[in-house]
Amino acid sequence: MTRPSAGMLFTDQYQLSMAQLYFKYGLHERRAQFDYSFRSYPDYGRHQAGYGVFAGLESLIDWMTDVRFTAEDLELMRSQTGATGKRLFDDDFLEWLDAEGHFGGIEMRAIPEGRVVHPLAPLVIVQGPLAMAQILETSLLNHLNYQTLIATKASRVHEAGRGGMVLEFGMRRGPAEGTNAGTRAALIGGADFSSNVGVSHELGLAPKGTHAHSMVQVFMALGMGEIGAFRAYAETYPDDCLLLVDTIDTLSSGVPNAIEVFRELRQQGHEPRGIRLDSGDLAYLAIRSAHLLDDAGFGDVGIVLSSNLDELAIWQILAQIREEAARYGVDPERLISRLTYGVGTRLITSQGHAALDGVYKLVAFHDEGEWVPAIKVSESPEKIPIPGDKRVWRVYDQRHNATADVVAMAGEDLQTGGPLVLHHPYRNGVHRVLEQVDVERVEPLHIPVFSGGRRVGEAATIDEMRQRRLDDLERLDPGVRRLVNPHIYHVSLTDQMKRLQSDLIDRLQPGA
Amino acid sequence: MTRPSAGMLFTDQYQLSMAQLYFKYGLHERRAQFDYSFRSYPDYGRHQAGYGVFAGLESLIDWMTDVRFTAEDLELMRSQTGATGKRLFDDDFLEWLDAEGHFGGIEMRAIPEGRVVHPLAPLVIVQGPLAMAQILETSLLNHLNYQTLIATKASRVHEAGRGGMVLEFGMRRGPAEGTNAGTRAALIGGADFSSNVGVSHELGLAPKGTHAHSMVQVFMALGMGEIGAFRAYAETYPDDCLLLVDTIDTLSSGVPNAIEVFRELRQQGHEPRGIRLDSGDLAYLAIRSAHLLDDAGFGDVGIVLSSNLDELAIWQILAQIREEAARYGVDPERLISRLTYGVGTRLITSQGHAALDGVYKLVAFHDEGEWVPAIKVSESPEKIPIPGDKRVWRVYDQRHNATADVVAMAGEDLQTGGPLVLHHPYRNGVHRVLEQVDVERVEPLHIPVFSGGRRVGEAATIDEMRQRRLDDLERLDPGVRRLVNPHIYHVSLTDQMKRLQSDLIDRLQPGA
Repeated sequence: MTRPSAGMLFTDQYQLSMAQLYFKYGLHERRAQFDYSFRSYPDYGRHQAGYGVFAGLESLIDWMTDVRFTAEDLELMRSQTGATGKRLFDDDFLEWLDAEGHFGGIEMRAIPEGRVVHPLAPLVIVQGPLAMAQILETSLLNHLNYQTLIATKASRVHEAGRGGMVLEFGMRRGPAEGTNAGTRAALIGGADFSSNVGVSHELGLAPKGTHAHSMVQVFMALGMGEIGAFRAYAETYPDDCLLLVDTIDTLSSGVPNAIEVFRELRQQGHEPRGIRLDSGDLAYLAIRSAHLLDDAGFGDVGIVLSSNLDELAIWQILAQIREEAARYGVDPERLISRLTYGVGTRLITSQGHAALDGVYKLVAFHDEGEWVPAIKVSESPEKIPIPGDKRVWRVYDQRHNATADVVAMAGEDLQTGGPLVLHHPYRNGVHRVLEQVDVERVEPLHIPVFSGGRRVGEAATIDEMRQRRLDDLERLDPGVRRLVNPHIYHVSLTDQMKRLQSDLIDRLQPGA
Repeated sequence: MTRPSAGMLFTDQYQLSMAQLYFKYGLHERRAQFDYSFRSYPDYGRHQAGYGVFAGLESLIDWMTDVRFTAEDLELMRSQTGATGKRLFDDDFLEWLDAEGHFGGIEMRAIPEGRVVHPLAPLVIVQGPLAMAQILETSLLNHLNYQTLIATKASRVHEAGRGGMVLEFGMRRGPAEGTNAGTRAALIGGADFSSNVGVSHELGLAPKGTHAHSMVQVFMALGMGEIGAFRAYAETYPDDCLLLVDTIDTLSSGVPNAIEVFRELRQQGHEPRGIRLDSGDLAYLAIRSAHLLDDAGFGDVGIVLSSNLDELAIWQILAQIREEAARYGVDPERLISRLTYGVGTRLITSQGHAALDGVYKLVAFHDEGEWVPAIKVSESPEKIPIPGDKRVWRVYDQRHNATADVVAMAGEDLQTGGPLVLHHPYRNGVHRVLEQVDVERVEPLHIPVFSGGRRVGEAATIDEMRQRRLDDLERLDPGVRRLVNPHIYHVSLTDQMKRLQSDLIDRLQPGA
């Protein structure tokens, strides 16, 4: 029943071309290792992230578990012809795909979803038969790049809001069906709830939302005015009454009308929930609205802000409130504590940085019983992948803060104590030494996540992923968490890993 | 079998809240009209679009045709509770959704998919029962905003390439499952083919792609070198041999190795297809590679460029080739005629402008047997929707160029001849008069597309949509098509429509 575009053919043509070539050369079942990593933090133009939040892994695993080449897929491939009209894919290859075209032979280790992550160190390590590990590339990158991008943005929005509730509202301008993945990533990364009904339910969270301007317009067209719309809303949802107050004019119409309806609600024994501001100078309107609400005895109802919010907009709104609220007789911190942030387009599209530059690179190839490290040289040193089978460790200092992610050879154990020599991943000669006394502990970051065609262990819940993020953020230097111009977190190579990389590069120079 | 997040619950929570409210007030089956339009052309920072290409309509219609509230959807809604733990949705409303929760009552007229479109004038007009027309909003915006955004970007990329083939390569960094919609929109807007296997097949197009760096690395790890990889590729795909030449070094290794393999191919009676350049200074490398290929007798093989391409990058590459090629003994125009452009991340994410600002606004409401125009005032005049039931006409001048899109009342006929008074959509007093002698013809843009729960007529093919785009582009002033700083195309209101809008705004001022 799966459409071809949602199944195994959710891939790039060249993956299939290469897979057939490997099949023809008897290389298709040789084991290979590919690493997934991203090259740089999202840079939103005026500001750059100092850390990422890893997301999309469980979605990828769900997809990998069920997918295989269907009869329809193979028929489509059989129909495909090249430049001279001859078939591109031969029967023997298609028969092999029919039998072995699934991910049963893939072993995957990964950093758990929701954790704070950094560039260059692999987040996912894939080992398996070359042909299927290659075909996996496109879908793996597609799942992990987009969700990590959005989770990272969501974490920044959450940090900017200083603990205020964040609602994800981006569906109407999100990227088609990809919006669902974006909503999920936002909920892992920093949104508390979403307006997206279907995905919220699937993840076990309540979708959130009240009404739009159109509802007020309907009652106005019927001659019942804005207050008629508000009364109808209060009557329908007496315990969940949150009113959008800017259809006509926020301060002269919306808020006074809302207060009148809130009074009526309270007389009937219900507590109103709040108002939503969706246009204009949100900081100023929040201050003035809070003042009106306070005076009317509604000092506890919430104020939801929406309209073009992102981390910097929220940051600026809070700064403006701190500066101006007192002038209007409003306590700024009390006002800030009642704010909720509805964040739409700028979160679901990661405004300013629309794609994570994650890559999936061949780093080792199994030949004659042993792993042969592979490398690709490049004119940009940061694009040279870290070769060979490896492990990633996180090093914590005596203040319990994460101080570096270290990429080591698979056989190395960093928990034995002794000083750690940490090399810059691509600037030769740049290194630092961490003495044992400065290190609180060393944590291996990868766990096995996929084997034998299925997930290893239980799928994590959204709550567990959120907890991982919060735990990691607490152990991050405040300078790295800063919204603008953050400190650079160290990603380093061990001595052995650095030596392997240098040796391979030397050997692969053209003419060498 | 449909997951809730792909069906009717692919919507925002407030649509359901409002629908229940309308149900409680007996308004749910009153007819309402909502218009879909976008407010401004995408602005990519250094450059802005002068026109849009409309896409996503047939995808939306497919979704609308089959979707209805399922038992699972209703069960999820039944489980939802508000702030005090009471259910949010009552049984009577859920029963109504069970019986009437589909789009059978919706009538939709639209500009056909693939056509050139402009801001403010509605692209889609929806009339139908208020509750279901409201619930439709989120999915409609989601389908149309993203695909129109990507089709518009693709058209610009195609224009920049001056007729050279454009390949869409964005899957690895596209927005999760939304990538499929993005690929489709790119294929309508300007891409000739895509690497996305599943969607290409579903649309009846051949997916395109050859091999990645990893294939060369595998053969290098096996001691067979780059040329071993190229030979294997040529042997597997002798009539479709296109080689990626930058894994080691383009000019000292990749191109010479490719030429050697091309010679072997030709001796065996096969013509090679070309090379792909994926890093470095693409203009310079294209010139030098062309020179090497020419000298070796391969003056006809193609050169595919990829890596961070978008319309401006392509424009600059062509300018650089025109300036520098002769110095290396290469004819620039001949080189340009053999180029193909592989465009990835920057197309699928609409780099620089990540979301179209399309809106779906209530513009009329049926009351006591007649349509009552509705309006929403706003501090930003361009955000005030054009009220009432309406038609959009395109006016062509005597040079056969489209000169304005004109929004008229539903009852007006602009084909009767006589001068046309065209008002600026929101700047009062700004208008121009088109004399009959200056007008070649006037074309109504909308056709009925959805009625009685299904598509009206046949679905258009991708080829038909592409033809509409090409026809419209030919009738567009070259200044409007310009990549940077384009002329502004006129979108105007007729006298009658302008008067209706002004009257409504006057009546709705607060205190009026």
